[in-house]
Amino acid sequence: MADAAPTTTWHVDAPLTDVPPAVDLTIQEFLADRHAEFDGIDPVIEQGITELGKFVVGGKRLRPLFAWAGVRAALDGGGGQLDPGTDAASLVRAVSSLEFIQACALIHDDIIDHSDTRRGRPTVHRSFEARHRRDAWLGDPGAYGVSQAILVGDLAFAWADDMLAASGVSAEALLRARTPWRAMRTEVIAGQMLDISVEASGSEDPEAPGKVNAYKTAAYTVERPLHVGAALADAPAHTVEMLRSAGRDIGVAFQLEDDYLGVFGDPAVTGKASGDDLRSGKRTYLAATALRAADATDPAAAARLRAGIGTVTSEEEVDVLRGIIVDSGAAADSTALIRSLTDRAVETLRGGGLGRSVTGELVAVAEELTERRS
Amino acid sequence: MADAAPTTTWHVDAPLTDVPPAVDLTIQEFLADRHAEFDGIDPVIEQGITELGKFVVGGKRLRPLFAWAGVRAALDGGGGQLDPGTDAASLVRAVSSLEFIQACALIHDDIIDHSDTRRGRPTVHRSFEARHRRDAWLGDPGAYGVSQAILVGDLAFAWADDMLAASGVSAEALLRARTPWRAMRTEVIAGQMLDISVEASGSEDPEAPGKVNAYKTAAYTVERPLHVGAALADAPAHTVEMLRSAGRDIGVAFQLEDDYLGVFGDPAVTGKASGDDLRSGKRTYLAATALRAADATDPAAAARLRAGIGTVTSEEEVDVLRGIIVDSGAAADSTALIRSLTDRAVETLRGGGLGRSVTGELVAVAEELTERRS
Repeated sequence: MADAAPTTTWHVDAPLTDVPPAVDLTIQEFLADRHAEFDGIDPVIEQGITELGKFVVGGKRLRPLFAWAGVRAALDGGGGQLDPGTDAASLVRAVSSLEFIQACALIHDDIIDHSDTRRGRPTVHRSFEARHRRDAWLGDPGAYGVSQAILVGDLAFAWADDMLAASGVSAEALLRARTPWRAMRTEVIAGQMLDISVEASGSEDPEAPGKVNAYKTAAYTVERPLHVGAALADAPAHTVEMLRSAGRDIGVAFQLEDDYLGVFGDPAVTGKASGDDLRSGKRTYLAATALRAADATDPAAAARLRAGIGTVTSEEEVDVLRGIIVDSGAAADSTALIRSLTDRAVETLRGGGLGRSVTGELVAVAEELTERRS
Repeated sequence: MADAAPTTTWHVDAPLTDVPPAVDLTIQEFLADRHAEFDGIDPVIEQGITELGKFVVGGKRLRPLFAWAGVRAALDGGGGQLDPGTDAASLVRAVSSLEFIQACALIHDDIIDHSDTRRGRPTVHRSFEARHRRDAWLGDPGAYGVSQAILVGDLAFAWADDMLAASGVSAEALLRARTPWRAMRTEVIAGQMLDISVEASGSEDPEAPGKVNAYKTAAYTVERPLHVGAALADAPAHTVEMLRSAGRDIGVAFQLEDDYLGVFGDPAVTGKASGDDLRSGKRTYLAATALRAADATDPAAAARLRAGIGTVTSEEEVDVLRGIIVDSGAAADSTALIRSLTDRAVETLRGGGLGRSVTGELVAVAEELTERRS
């Protein structure tokens, strides 16, 4: 174990802002143990664990953060309690396991989306491909890379469960956490399947991206992590329902804000090309509502938008589409919806009977995630 | 629930031969529940669950069979016991969950191997591809099929854990089963990664396929399932070690027999083309040892074998390679090794202190799996 491990001094009042570095540490410890346990099988296994390690470095740690918020909420006004033998360190290890589900989702998504990089580094399938090329191995390097990445994603998925089960929380806590854990895993996979089929079918129904968001983002990123944390800390049903309700609203608002930034965001802030979603043709609620509104009020503009989504390349072309979306009213509607969902979530949290500090921290996170325009 | 469900009349003495149909039923029940729970999300989810259902139909159910053997062994002379509240029906549901790990492994393997069919039916990625083509959707049908199949495999992997956790066995039994369960999941993935890298590197080291067999087949198909069953039924350490030792030998022998049939097997028995492994170039222990022996005694023959593996197409060419393998002594050595491993496993089982019927049944299964030449 690492020296001066924050997890050994971790306590149940730890603020949400302390979660990301603590998660980094628990994951490093976990992977160091896996290296010790499995590197000896073969260099390719060591390579796989190393790739996974590089992959789980960084990231905002949103899911463990919301899960920790669920723990804090349960213990601070929410009516929950720690089981005998369950300490703060085991709880932070338990919530860190969510990052391995995320790792699997992203590694497999990168294959599905044919992505070459993520956060400025080669994707896992590209890394394995590069090693194959470097060593002049037999067969197609790209296919080899994809094959190994599918398996590394599977490993991450298995290790999420292992990390939770070995975290040190009580058997009763694990049992309670199963309900949201199993729901979340199926919901994120279902959301991804739906996302892919919506894109392939070319559906313009605004309900469709809304549903994708509900399962792939809102439930998976906010609602269920809050639920997991609350369950670990034995929160009563009314607290769980309150947190889930706020979590759903925050999650939907978060994705809508993400979609807004995908059209209007400043590259210096988003780290992506200007109008990235318009260039890629991502089927968002914003795009769908803009098309529907423009169809009714300005068919020529609607036709230009429909044709431009996914095909535009120049900044001028992107600007034209942005103008159409604004003129359709969809941009303002989306902004208003984000605000109203966030306000409703904040109202739910403030009326939730939780302690002052956890309420304040959760409200701050909700507002930060839904106001990212500068 | 289905009428006249064998699981409700299932008992702990149920013979191994009764396991496959019981597993079929528990899986049908589980999937029916998942349809009820998730079909409403979207037709593509219903399609995914249906594809998974078609995929888990059939198969020899080896892993649940060995796990059930572990339960029987623990309870019949092995020194184990049923936890209060754990009944036979919950145990058969628990062991059935292994089939979902197998489903994930096969669905992902079919993608990795670019297989079009399995057991005479389209692979999952080909099924989704066909639907995409039929509906004339956007984008590449093949890529769509692979994407959805990666996710259906992920779903299967998640549901294996869910099925085990919801099987009804006690929390203590689940805790005991975690040790072999977590080991097995990592071992099968590591074995597959190793298999892929061995093939791509073109390694001729006989140790390599041996190691792949140990992790991908022996541990995963026989040793760990026996271990899971024994752990569920609280077997003491000496029984667990005895079963694992026999399981390792049976598992390695099983794969060696598979490899022998892949060269010499009768298509009417194997269901595969004559000399299938020679045509596909599969890197087996048999091929590696034949090459090593031929290098020493008949370099010209070794060269023909080396060039022929993976490239031969006609029955005449395959026959030539078969002759070289026989002449090298590797075929006889392999047969002798299969026999000695099986004999050692049988000896271990017979000396294991288990009840007469479970001993007899396990010995029968071991012999059946390692003598499949007619």
